[in-house]
Amino acid sequence: MNDRTPQAAVIGLGFIGRAHVEALRRLGIPVRGVLGRDPVSTQREAAALGLRPYFSLEELLADPAVTVVHQCGPNDVHARHNHESIAAGKHVFSEKPLGVSVDECAAQLDAANHAGIHHAVNFTYRGYAAVQSLRDLVQSGELGDVKYLRGHYLQDWLLLDTDFNWRVGAAPQETRTVADIGSHLADLARYVTGLEPERMLARFTTLHPERHRPLGTVQTFATAQGLTEPIAVTTEDQASLLVTYSGGVQANFELSQVAAGHKNDLELDILGTRGSARWRQEQPEEIELGSRDAQRVIRLKDASHPFSHYPGGHPEGYPDAIANVIRAFYAAIQGRPASAPYPTFQDGLAAALFTRAAYQSASQERWITLERGRDVRVSVL
Amino acid sequence: MNDRTPQAAVIGLGFIGRAHVEALRRLGIPVRGVLGRDPVSTQREAAALGLRPYFSLEELLADPAVTVVHQCGPNDVHARHNHESIAAGKHVFSEKPLGVSVDECAAQLDAANHAGIHHAVNFTYRGYAAVQSLRDLVQSGELGDVKYLRGHYLQDWLLLDTDFNWRVGAAPQETRTVADIGSHLADLARYVTGLEPERMLARFTTLHPERHRPLGTVQTFATAQGLTEPIAVTTEDQASLLVTYSGGVQANFELSQVAAGHKNDLELDILGTRGSARWRQEQPEEIELGSRDAQRVIRLKDASHPFSHYPGGHPEGYPDAIANVIRAFYAAIQGRPASAPYPTFQDGLAAALFTRAAYQSASQERWITLERGRDVRVSVL
Amino acid sequence: MNDRTPQAAVIGLGFIGRAHVEALRRLGIPVRGVLGRDPVSTQREAAALGLRPYFSLEELLADPAVTVVHQCGPNDVHARHNHESIAAGKHVFSEKPLGVSVDECAAQLDAANHAGIHHAVNFTYRGYAAVQSLRDLVQSGELGDVKYLRGHYLQDWLLLDTDFNWRVGAAPQETRTVADIGSHLADLARYVTGLEPERMLARFTTLHPERHRPLGTVQTFATAQGLTEPIAVTTEDQASLLVTYSGGVQANFELSQVAAGHKNDLELDILGTRGSARWRQEQPEEIELGSRDAQRVIRLKDASHPFSHYPGGHPEGYPDAIANVIRAFYAAIQGRPASAPYPTFQDGLAAALFTRAAYQSASQERWITLERGRDVRVSVL
Amino acid sequence: MNDRTPQAAVIGLGFIGRAHVEALRRLGIPVRGVLGRDPVSTQREAAALGLRPYFSLEELLADPAVTVVHQCGPNDVHARHNHESIAAGKHVFSEKPLGVSVDECAAQLDAANHAGIHHAVNFTYRGYAAVQSLRDLVQSGELGDVKYLRGHYLQDWLLLDTDFNWRVGAAPQETRTVADIGSHLADLARYVTGLEPERMLARFTTLHPERHRPLGTVQTFATAQGLTEPIAVTTEDQASLLVTYSGGVQANFELSQVAAGHKNDLELDILGTRGSARWRQEQPEEIELGSRDAQRVIRLKDASHPFSHYPGGHPEGYPDAIANVIRAFYAAIQGRPASAPYPTFQDGLAAALFTRAAYQSASQERWITLERGRDVRVSVL
Repeated sequence: MNDRTPQAAVIGLGFIGRAHVEALRRLGIPVRGVLGRDPVSTQREAAALGLRPYFSLEELLADPAVTVVHQCGPNDVHARHNHESIAAGKHVFSEKPLGVSVDECAAQLDAANHAGIHHAVNFTYRGYAAVQSLRDLVQSGELGDVKYLRGHYLQDWLLLDTDFNWRVGAAPQETRTVADIGSHLADLARYVTGLEPERMLARFTTLHPERHRPLGTVQTFATAQGLTEPIAVTTEDQASLLVTYSGGVQANFELSQVAAGHKNDLELDILGTRGSARWRQEQPEEIELGSRDAQRVIRLKDASHPFSHYPGGHPEGYPDAIANVIRAFYAAIQGRPASAPYPTFQDGLAAALFTRAAYQSASQERWITLERGRDVRVSVL
Repeated sequence: MNDRTPQAAVIGLGFIGRAHVEALRRLGIPVRGVLGRDPVSTQREAAALGLRPYFSLEELLADPAVTVVHQCGPNDVHARHNHESIAAGKHVFSEKPLGVSVDECAAQLDAANHAGIHHAVNFTYRGYAAVQSLRDLVQSGELGDVKYLRGHYLQDWLLLDTDFNWRVGAAPQETRTVADIGSHLADLARYVTGLEPERMLARFTTLHPERHRPLGTVQTFATAQGLTEPIAVTTEDQASLLVTYSGGVQANFELSQVAAGHKNDLELDILGTRGSARWRQEQPEEIELGSRDAQRVIRLKDASHPFSHYPGGHPEGYPDAIANVIRAFYAAIQGRPASAPYPTFQDGLAAALFTRAAYQSASQERWITLERGRDVRVSVL
Repeated sequence: MNDRTPQAAVIGLGFIGRAHVEALRRLGIPVRGVLGRDPVSTQREAAALGLRPYFSLEELLADPAVTVVHQCGPNDVHARHNHESIAAGKHVFSEKPLGVSVDECAAQLDAANHAGIHHAVNFTYRGYAAVQSLRDLVQSGELGDVKYLRGHYLQDWLLLDTDFNWRVGAAPQETRTVADIGSHLADLARYVTGLEPERMLARFTTLHPERHRPLGTVQTFATAQGLTEPIAVTTEDQASLLVTYSGGVQANFELSQVAAGHKNDLELDILGTRGSARWRQEQPEEIELGSRDAQRVIRLKDASHPFSHYPGGHPEGYPDAIANVIRAFYAAIQGRPASAPYPTFQDGLAAALFTRAAYQSASQERWITLERGRDVRVSVL
Repeated sequence: MNDRTPQAAVIGLGFIGRAHVEALRRLGIPVRGVLGRDPVSTQREAAALGLRPYFSLEELLADPAVTVVHQCGPNDVHARHNHESIAAGKHVFSEKPLGVSVDECAAQLDAANHAGIHHAVNFTYRGYAAVQSLRDLVQSGELGDVKYLRGHYLQDWLLLDTDFNWRVGAAPQETRTVADIGSHLADLARYVTGLEPERMLARFTTLHPERHRPLGTVQTFATAQGLTEPIAVTTEDQASLLVTYSGGVQANFELSQVAAGHKNDLELDILGTRGSARWRQEQPEEIELGSRDAQRVIRLKDASHPFSHYPGGHPEGYPDAIANVIRAFYAAIQGRPASAPYPTFQDGLAAALFTRAAYQSASQERWITLERGRDVRVSVL
């Protein structure tokens, strides 16, 4: 490492914050320190990771060695933290969502552009080599003209009414299933096809109008035990989205966090005039190609892609995808060619526009035309 | 065979008519004769099958030995033929659709009930043992309360604009993709869950507004060759259906006849409060069960079900499903207990109501409440 | 049907005999009558099938309308029945094994050839369209030079020591697992590759040296209930076979009837210098092609092959495979071109030679060179 | 990190050496420096990784901060390097094989035990959480008594005669396919079942007796380009192994490095008296359970196992398995409870005994009884 090597600090030490630390370390990027939920947990987690604890955002931002801030805190602090980090001249790699409204996201994009910093938002699934290959084959015209998209993102970690997460009680317009997982599917569709959503018809369903909130803090993917209190659920458990993309491409997306047996079942099937291509996150190294011929082709990991690090047959997974997105971001910071386009605040804004349209359509029971305050094309740096 | 053994005649000698002949023969049910498209082809096909040719419906219906008529002719003659067969006191096993409108279907149901004959409409997929098992497990409450349905029926035989079938130019309100394959998915959903559709939002898409019609006759699943003429396509290639079922159960169905690589890809995923169950027609002997547990259960063919005829591991397929539906129908005619409920004209009427609602919603771009002229519960004889 | 239409009689009314009746019927081949285990069961089964009962082989063979005898009786009567049928001038379609020794099989082949009758032995798996396609692609050189064969045939219907079948107590040299299911794998390998086995090293294992025989008759695939008596097991439950084929091609085959969870798991993987091709009986319409490229190709049913009767995506299975083999045999009888080569007594003899070598190797614990009394090349009529 | 935190140095900077560096970094274990093939490449690779270059083993061992040596160099230096590292009082984490002969391996085990250092040999596949679960379920008796093992390890990276690797020209008794990949399958079988191999019958095959060696250095998994010279191949491309384990458990293993389409296809199927369990490396988070019941159970990743770091549905793969083995080793060094038993030099010796027996059997064409110079039980620390 030399003086120009970027050094990182990580805000938030939950599941995803620790994943960032690990990814940074395997990439050989120095992690200066971490900022957790409160002094006690920060102290404890920092010690466990062998890292310096920061006890406030101010302290973190004041560290001149820190050139990149990783935002892995709770959703409701993303906007404020990101603005302060930008103001401090740091590059920002933020977890999604950028903010809880379109305006919050747009403001961050403006601030980042104005400050001239590098910015990224973690749509992790772009980090799979197969997603890159999928994009290449779609863009190369191998499928003919793309005409339809079929997709779903289904989970079951909120199946029971004793399952709880703070997102359950978010403001309805923030949405939950759409913002949490629908945004990933939407980004994947945009990234792979290069198409933008234009109209949407959404239906939201809430399986449990009331859930049992534990008295205490709950991590994502955890189930309530011990004492609980009833809480009215204000956000959707499930959403069906009919979307029209630019060029008249139609899409049908199904989202759920209460679909028993579906763990992290994200799938996108792209149907063109000559062929189709399907990718499944739970089988992330394969693309299934369909055609009129009496055969199905399973395209395996392209071991020569920079996002691949092992030969064929040696499975690479979710932690590798995270590392690949971070790797591409740091390449941009260092002025090296990125191995693939990474998602930026522009893509975070696109997700906010998508989420807002879904909420509007579902609550008004009608088709909504997506507003486009500014150019939200997929960022290709 | 004795005097009371039913004997069959088959109208229509295309792909599905020949399948009926074969199924009847393997069941040991005597086939008296067949009626084809015209005298020449009737003569030729009857000879090839070693069967008596009938040269008119009148001649067929006048044969006193014929007690059951199998209707496998073109869709537009189903209603007239079925009425005449009923009037002649024959039992009727009809291919779907019963008719091209709700009224046509309702009239046949009335006539059949009035005449007291046995009637069936061929929703073939009920004939798989696994579909019967799926119904049993749903009805037994093994999944908890059913809350959502995800389904699709995707084919690719009309992918190219040189692919042609007479259904392409049907009246828009008859629909094509919904009537042809959506009706199968709709029947499957009703049969397995016992729920009735109440509201629907449909979106239709036509990939090719113009296709090339060959000058001459074309069989189903065939591609045009030689001279063609342009024909305006009046029916949908693809349809997305959001449906609300009785009890507030929501469904999202995707239908297409232009989905490259999807051959006969019918799938239904039933999501309940305790588990989910998924069935795929192309893997017809398996049911995939999902739950919150860290395991997936693949339930194999129940070799003890009357619809199973071979031990586990010996695949039974589509021809066996047809034979099973026919078998159940003849058991009813003979007063023996049917091995499973078979689809009747009542189910044919339900399909017409579903199809009409889809057309109305897609053409009016709004939610439609399904009318219910009469009780259309799944027939359980 | 005319005077030259062959008419069949079926000996044996167990699982497989009834399957023959059904297959003959769906092919439109008249079944004259059936001969069962004893007069009482013959009477009952014949009535259920609507067929004439024969009460002795003599009576059956004396029926001049019967031109083809289907041998589906117990293994130990195959040789005697087949000889008498040949002597009566009937064509013979025999279940495997032809006989319990090489000599018995060779004698039948000689007699059949001398009499000039048509003969077949039911290696059913040749009846799958995909097996025909597999043969074509291997023979066409698509895989380069074939170098290795990997295969297995695993079942679990004899897993428990309370599972019983008369084959369990056969003479050791008759073998059980090798003769019952190994012979199918051996025929499949010979048929698809055109190679003959030359040397073999076999290891036999008996999981249960003693089993519980029910006091009464037991059908294949049935489990003992009620009173039982202990019986010493003289035949192998499992066998590993290393085989060298002509041209130095090596094979490794694993056979078991006690492999929990494997129902009828027959698989053959053919490895060549340019590619590999794998076929699995439980997924019978697919061939998986492997190559050095980063892709796997799943070749689907060739719907244009005469063994295919339905479009892609409409599964055809085991009953269809049986019917296809029978269809090819009757085409030969009628002097029509067979849709594909069917297995003859020559192939039955090849199976006996294979079985004998396995027994010799396992009992002597050494490599055995297969004797070849006569040309046993795969029959291609 | 404190004074007691172990610090690592890595020898060898090929594919696997870089993987060690990455794994150590993500675990937060300081990497002091690296030693490559020659000064030039060492300098270059060390700079790329931001690490200190060592220019000799002596220099590396003389660094007092280094407490653990990772041996990722060529096979023929493993023994010498490991001995010197042990002599210097370092803990040793060695790639397999420990040595090219049984004696070399036994000597290292003795030296390590005598010196009291911690030692490990990298049988990576133990690092999958599912392999740990598989072991637990086998040991718990869930399958009944284990009776058979079916396994294979198939690759295709040496399919063509222009594929080259220095292992191709190793001494025959070192073996290639058995030592390289057979040793992994053998360790997996021992680890999961707790059984030791006692007798073996092996058959070796060499597909290409001559290969084309490039003039220059070739990395593993690379194909020769440019100028080449012919080289006689002295090692096996493929091996079939019949093995008898303790307690009379039989196994059939197939190994190949020339199996087209099989990338890193390691599979083990454990057959017991009550059920079977199958694990496939290319689908590493699933265990397929078979039983006599008409169902198959796919057990998914146990997200609560210490080797799992992400929730269900978030795939973890090969890099994670390596990190898990290393993690367990460092836990032992630090006196913390290891998350699971890791493979030690004792297991490296067991692999050498297995390899030697395979070579002896194949070259002598007879059954070989494995010698056991010392207790080689699976190490469970």
